[in-house]
Amino acid sequence: MNITMIIYVLGWILTTIAALMFLPFFVSIYYEDPTGKYFLICILLMLIPGFLAIRKRPKNTRFYAKEGFVMTALSWLLLSVVGCLPFCLSKEIPSFTNALFECISGFTTTGASILHDVETMSRSMMFWRCFIQWIGGMGVLVFMLALIPMTGGQDLYIMKAESPGPNVGKLVPKVRQTAYYLYGIYTALTLLEIISLYIAGMPLYDAVCTSFTTTSTGGFGVRSASIGAYSPAIQNVVSVFLFLSGMNYYFYFLLWIKRFKEAFSLQEIRLYTLIFFSSIAVIAFDLTRIGYSLEECIRYSAFQVGSIMTTAGFASADFDTWPSLSKTILVVLMFIGGCAGSTTGGIKVIRILTYLKTIKKEIAHLIHPRNVKIIKIDGKPLAHDILRSTNVFLAVYMMIFVCSLLLVSVDNQDLITNFTAVASALGNIGPGLAKVGPTCNFDLFSPFSKYVLMFDMLAGRLELFPLLVLFAPSTWRRR
Amino acid sequence: MNITMIIYVLGWILTTIAALMFLPFFVSIYYEDPTGKYFLICILLMLIPGFLAIRKRPKNTRFYAKEGFVMTALSWLLLSVVGCLPFCLSKEIPSFTNALFECISGFTTTGASILHDVETMSRSMMFWRCFIQWIGGMGVLVFMLALIPMTGGQDLYIMKAESPGPNVGKLVPKVRQTAYYLYGIYTALTLLEIISLYIAGMPLYDAVCTSFTTTSTGGFGVRSASIGAYSPAIQNVVSVFLFLSGMNYYFYFLLWIKRFKEAFSLQEIRLYTLIFFSSIAVIAFDLTRIGYSLEECIRYSAFQVGSIMTTAGFASADFDTWPSLSKTILVVLMFIGGCAGSTTGGIKVIRILTYLKTIKKEIAHLIHPRNVKIIKIDGKPLAHDILRSTNVFLAVYMMIFVCSLLLVSVDNQDLITNFTAVASALGNIGPGLAKVGPTCNFDLFSPFSKYVLMFDMLAGRLELFPLLVLFAPSTWRRR
Repeated sequence: MNITMIIYVLGWILTTIAALMFLPFFVSIYYEDPTGKYFLICILLMLIPGFLAIRKRPKNTRFYAKEGFVMTALSWLLLSVVGCLPFCLSKEIPSFTNALFECISGFTTTGASILHDVETMSRSMMFWRCFIQWIGGMGVLVFMLALIPMTGGQDLYIMKAESPGPNVGKLVPKVRQTAYYLYGIYTALTLLEIISLYIAGMPLYDAVCTSFTTTSTGGFGVRSASIGAYSPAIQNVVSVFLFLSGMNYYFYFLLWIKRFKEAFSLQEIRLYTLIFFSSIAVIAFDLTRIGYSLEECIRYSAFQVGSIMTTAGFASADFDTWPSLSKTILVVLMFIGGCAGSTTGGIKVIRILTYLKTIKKEIAHLIHPRNVKIIKIDGKPLAHDILRSTNVFLAVYMMIFVCSLLLVSVDNQDLITNFTAVASALGNIGPGLAKVGPTCNFDLFSPFSKYVLMFDMLAGRLELFPLLVLFAPSTWRRR
Repeated sequence: MNITMIIYVLGWILTTIAALMFLPFFVSIYYEDPTGKYFLICILLMLIPGFLAIRKRPKNTRFYAKEGFVMTALSWLLLSVVGCLPFCLSKEIPSFTNALFECISGFTTTGASILHDVETMSRSMMFWRCFIQWIGGMGVLVFMLALIPMTGGQDLYIMKAESPGPNVGKLVPKVRQTAYYLYGIYTALTLLEIISLYIAGMPLYDAVCTSFTTTSTGGFGVRSASIGAYSPAIQNVVSVFLFLSGMNYYFYFLLWIKRFKEAFSLQEIRLYTLIFFSSIAVIAFDLTRIGYSLEECIRYSAFQVGSIMTTAGFASADFDTWPSLSKTILVVLMFIGGCAGSTTGGIKVIRILTYLKTIKKEIAHLIHPRNVKIIKIDGKPLAHDILRSTNVFLAVYMMIFVCSLLLVSVDNQDLITNFTAVASALGNIGPGLAKVGPTCNFDLFSPFSKYVLMFDMLAGRLELFPLLVLFAPSTWRRR
């Protein structure tokens, strides 16, 4: 284990976050918030150890997959702790557990909140709360990789560990270049949404914050009624950007380099679009039962499907009161999630596609045992390693889900609350149903359950393995 | 596709069921039930086509895995239809859908009922209802294999398709011999339970019926209050036999041939016992919260864990009113099920063990990519084919679960009812929670949902693939 290199990277994380905290500090100056000083204190607190750690580049910069996982997991734990400091120091979230929960929920783009009324927050804290979703969405390590020159090729291990999806989301051979492109597309989407929301009539501050939490599919809102507080036009703009944010960024990259045919024939994008629009259609039809107008049925359905499938977790209506079929579809979408290579959570469409192809292959094998079929996605055969890890992923997802569910149920809330709270945390969604429904919050859980849910959020964001590797005894054993 | 051979086997199925129907007919004579004549009618209706089909042994008796699956799936569909005839003809269950549901629930050893009051049934019909669980438990095709000489080696395909577990449960090299042993152990367990229950004070008729539905882990009872209607001593006897029935029969076979050390070191048996008793301990502790005495906590907990984990589905208390943790454990046990090579349903402990080992291996692989670890169970490396099909099994289980849940939720029952009804049907358990809880029944569902649940029961009993193969277009395509 290359400890010095890990400390070096963690130092860069501290420095990066400190630098990013200047943004909410400027916001506090603009709005004359008295809470601005807490950001300065945090910046100082982080810069000192940060500079000490990055002062000298380690002699041995070599590291491997194991270190990549450990770095990523430790970075995220560090992020979570330092990210919640402004909330704690300013006493806007007095309890450390709650502040940590809110911060992890932010960075992991879950969007589950313990706040009873978000509108009492100061403007700069609220801005920070939304901004950490934006940072967490694409990944702070990816951001760092775009800026800091690492040793050749090994930064791939970090990107592998932080980026969502079974395969590493390399757009171009160089990792640093890829990180540039990813943040480029991300920023472009965000700016485009800010402009669209502003044109649709949203105040600029709200538009910026909402765009941060839409493109990161985070789901924190600046209003207690979430997006339901705004006009139908604004809701529709958010729906569109949710749909766009759930797509694999590789799609946009292909569009950028004008390979349109290839972009539109990506199987994951096609399946994502199919699930997305068929869910909207079925829910819209189901909602006609409960007295909404046709326009409302379609608007609410589109918004909620977008919000849940991309694991953002905004609300425009209290879907806990919707009919069973609609609720069940939303719960299933919680597990599916968006595309790999996007900012969404959940199992991811590419894995669902892989499972469907695996099942088809298995049945074909049972019928004609001598035929050897190879699983292909987009015309390319799937490597055995990826296939295996995709299968294991499902088992791990279920195992973590079941263990968390059992631990959380000690609190003795009802089954729907527990089930959807865990599904929501692990899938990085935000709201669930019943007592954690869109009009409620997560403060009802005991501190113990909150820590379980925090683990789930981090595990979900990092796609399970980095955290498991961090806690595996053999990671720390000398050989 | 060897159609003549399939018809020949189906003919034997008809003849076998006709022969077995003499048993309830004798019961009807003993109790002077007027319903006895319906059994005679059914026997005649079955024997005619049965004899026609088995009159001539096909010239070409060769068949392969594909035919094995198709034979098994068709046999079970045929069983279901002819098994429900006595209920229909006698009008004890007037609706065909309900009679078919009850019959499939019987043969698949689910034990979910559409009856509002079982105690109004005649003695012979009740006997038949319990007896079909006993037939279905070990499998009617396995029963047939013990009696009818098939062609050498190919009967293995049938046994593979009907027997639960990822690996074929061959105890000895010859299939026919294995079938003998399996039915031998099964009968011995049943007789032992009849005697024990009788000694504990149960009337003989009840003891026979209850033993049929315990050792088959079916869960149909002869009383509306299920096993809760009897004394604590009787409840404890049933608990013990539930535990015994959930074990892999290979364990008993090893005991029989005096390889005790090997028997007790079987990893599946150990994990099964561990999950079983730790669940009992946690639930018993959880139940102390709601005012039961210590003896009741342990007795109810042991009974319910036994009943749910072995997928029998008896009730001794209304566990729908228990605290969340207890209910969540029971729901998780619904998915786990008992051991492979037993009469239980669910995913099976051996697969859970395989998943755990796979996860451990994957994490080890991430930490030390160059180490090649092989997954071993009981010291023997697991074949790649079995590993793959075990992984696919989980994906198929989840896929069928989710599709069924969506279809059933069209009825607009609450989420807990839908979720546990499908879990219960697919795992062959019986009761669920909320409106399908232990004091309720499945009659609230629409006929459409009932057919979905029937599919799930059959899919669960045959471990998913035979039904999928039956419905795959390429099975029926000529090459």
